[in-house]
Amino acid sequence: MSSAPPRIHSTLKCDVAIVGAGMSGLSAARLLFEAGKSVVILEARDRVGGRTLSKALSNGFVVDMGGQWVGPTQQRVVGLIRQLGLQTFKTYQTGASLALIDGAALRYDGILPNLDETSGLDLAQAIEKLEALAASIPLDAPWAHPDAAELDRMTYAEWIDANANTQGARWALKFMAPSVFSVDASELSFLHVVFYFGSCGGVDVLTATEGGGQDSRFVDGMQGLATGLAAALPGGCVLLEEVVDRIVQDQAGVSVRATSIEVHARHVIVALPPTLAGRLRYDPPMPPLRDSLTQRMPMGTAIKMMFRYPTPFWRADELSGMAMTDKEVPQLVYDNSPADGSCGVLLGFTEGIPARSWMQRSPDERRAAGVETLVQLFGAKAAEPLEYVEHSWVSEEFSRGCYAGTMPPGAWCSFGPALRANVGRIHWAGTETATVWNGYVEGAMQAGERAATDVLSALDHRPTP
Amino acid sequence: MSSAPPRIHSTLKCDVAIVGAGMSGLSAARLLFEAGKSVVILEARDRVGGRTLSKALSNGFVVDMGGQWVGPTQQRVVGLIRQLGLQTFKTYQTGASLALIDGAALRYDGILPNLDETSGLDLAQAIEKLEALAASIPLDAPWAHPDAAELDRMTYAEWIDANANTQGARWALKFMAPSVFSVDASELSFLHVVFYFGSCGGVDVLTATEGGGQDSRFVDGMQGLATGLAAALPGGCVLLEEVVDRIVQDQAGVSVRATSIEVHARHVIVALPPTLAGRLRYDPPMPPLRDSLTQRMPMGTAIKMMFRYPTPFWRADELSGMAMTDKEVPQLVYDNSPADGSCGVLLGFTEGIPARSWMQRSPDERRAAGVETLVQLFGAKAAEPLEYVEHSWVSEEFSRGCYAGTMPPGAWCSFGPALRANVGRIHWAGTETATVWNGYVEGAMQAGERAATDVLSALDHRPTP
Repeated sequence: MSSAPPRIHSTLKCDVAIVGAGMSGLSAARLLFEAGKSVVILEARDRVGGRTLSKALSNGFVVDMGGQWVGPTQQRVVGLIRQLGLQTFKTYQTGASLALIDGAALRYDGILPNLDETSGLDLAQAIEKLEALAASIPLDAPWAHPDAAELDRMTYAEWIDANANTQGARWALKFMAPSVFSVDASELSFLHVVFYFGSCGGVDVLTATEGGGQDSRFVDGMQGLATGLAAALPGGCVLLEEVVDRIVQDQAGVSVRATSIEVHARHVIVALPPTLAGRLRYDPPMPPLRDSLTQRMPMGTAIKMMFRYPTPFWRADELSGMAMTDKEVPQLVYDNSPADGSCGVLLGFTEGIPARSWMQRSPDERRAAGVETLVQLFGAKAAEPLEYVEHSWVSEEFSRGCYAGTMPPGAWCSFGPALRANVGRIHWAGTETATVWNGYVEGAMQAGERAATDVLSALDHRPTP
Repeated sequence: MSSAPPRIHSTLKCDVAIVGAGMSGLSAARLLFEAGKSVVILEARDRVGGRTLSKALSNGFVVDMGGQWVGPTQQRVVGLIRQLGLQTFKTYQTGASLALIDGAALRYDGILPNLDETSGLDLAQAIEKLEALAASIPLDAPWAHPDAAELDRMTYAEWIDANANTQGARWALKFMAPSVFSVDASELSFLHVVFYFGSCGGVDVLTATEGGGQDSRFVDGMQGLATGLAAALPGGCVLLEEVVDRIVQDQAGVSVRATSIEVHARHVIVALPPTLAGRLRYDPPMPPLRDSLTQRMPMGTAIKMMFRYPTPFWRADELSGMAMTDKEVPQLVYDNSPADGSCGVLLGFTEGIPARSWMQRSPDERRAAGVETLVQLFGAKAAEPLEYVEHSWVSEEFSRGCYAGTMPPGAWCSFGPALRANVGRIHWAGTETATVWNGYVEGAMQAGERAATDVLSALDHRPTP
């Protein structure tokens, strides 16, 4: 039987250790490096980029298996694109969308299928309430909202049932939970939902393509943001395949133990989702509030599937490629073809409850179920994709789900204050700690920069011994 | 700065490694040892007993800072008491209970305060529904109940609001959530609540003193069960202060790495709460369903407080010492004096949401708040306790909460099947995996014995290579 490899420790010294080379850890590192601090990033994977991962299909076209879109209000990402000289292009959205209901594909325009007039008005008034609430949440302290306890005691599903009266509106509102959070509406604190919408600038901005969260895509893949950031750091400061398992702090500093190295630093930034940060061992142990928080921010479940065709044939039928379905595989479809339309790619998502059973089946089964749905949507031409690729983040040991950690009822009000508060020399980054575009790359960058700023202030006030 | 101690590994070989020397791990070990198997138990703490912990007060009287009661339907605990020759005595319950509401202490008989007739009937019909549902849950597969999805989508608070119409009944039903689960009613899947009640034999059995879950106490402390079990195992097989961090399995066996030792075994039983089991590193990594489960079973929060007086003076006023309060510290009070009444001890619990803010304050503050409440209940004699002791399990690195892991909405139906299913050579014990008295010592024992039985079957079918 294979035994654990011997642990031969070398040690390194630096000002700040960073755990995780996702966009949050890298953004923190950049800011610290620019401020003249020495930094070591310990990354468990053999690559940078966290929940962004770009891969070439067999025809050479690069697709994103993780985060892939950028919108104009995501100012940090937009700025970094410019600095790195990355190329983006508008998400294709010409033509009608489709809703597959009971086997029939109905054309519609906009984000959500046309509902009958009563349902449509019902949905509009519910979204108006959501927008107003989202705008009222103090993004740095959702628990301080005057109605926080009541909003946090309620699930999103419970709120929907109390605030939308038609089946159509309820369906549309519940559909947003897996699409946005990759969990079911019944699993989410309603306070978390309105906080999240608020952090993104509202429901409309979050769900929109043009001008919203899905505005543009990356020609060479979104992971280019991370590889670009890493390349600009001093050589040797990003250490791959270093799995951190223990952080020890005392008056003098902090020691971060990884697979083959121990880093001694003045501060550490843990740029991991809270559920993964909770798996490290800390000495002294985490205070109860912080530990309890990490027990209560599970990651969602999503399977991302791509089907490549010789051409984006649906465009000839004046279809945008966007579709919502009442099927499990996929529930949501987008046109994910290259900018020049030189091949056709349909992107499908299976998220939340259905993803949990479908992740236990084989890629062949998922491919077959996906193709069946695409044929119902786009006709016989969808029957024979040239290539099928998929990714399930919950299978990744160092992500354990996506798109982000979510809050069940009660977590924000009791444990929210522990989400960002440093514990001595340990600072928390990761998109889950962001106050803008929480759950997105933009949030990851904001969180990393905030953590780095906190560390710089702490270093200002504690001169090197 | 102190650095991590060097890891000097010695290795041990045995048939079965067990992680955790709580009542579940020890019960598994006993059964395996009796079947002729060699066993090594790795325990992170410097003691056995897990969430049982008995301590002498300064007058020598032993109290339990963790689990402390046993009831007649807890057959494994009752049997072990007999085998070990431990002494128990009936919980004191002569006289009236008190309900402290708006500063007034009202006498009542039974478990719950007298409600007006309408509220009383309302409560009775709600509890009847709970009992019927609890009796209908398949305890080994709650997700297989015909209404499982619906029950799991709902919080316990949501069910209460839909099924009790009076403020009195709602208050009493919601009060049970912190008392039983040490979380708020709004945080619990309703399916989990009825499963839990069902596993204990119903609401009445769980909440009752005489004949129920609080029937009797241990003269020398409940931890005697664990020290007794450990003492009956072969010398040297329980290794203390060995923190397991990694489990590697392959075709040939399993290797369990702890602080200073690596154990090579044919199987391993992980007898930890799921949230702590999720913090170990596994090679190969846990399958998605199992990992997702461990992200979704947070421990509750409870602070257990004891106030010692020269005598159990409340007994002279024909008071049982039992009280429910609308205060935060404590919410629930029991007479916890020794069998002979040679001193008086009042036991107070602060659980759920109030415990989360009160755990951040000082012992002196908790003591003062507790005394203030006890004076309102029992008069001026309660003002000057001779001794105050307290315990908060959420502060313990190797428990991280109590009484047990709980399920938020949705967890049972999506992830329940991964709760007990072994992953290759890794088997799961711990009271959270029990089908009887889940969350109790009885459940811990049942779970340990079930895991041991599973391992024995596996060993039967795979002869030593």
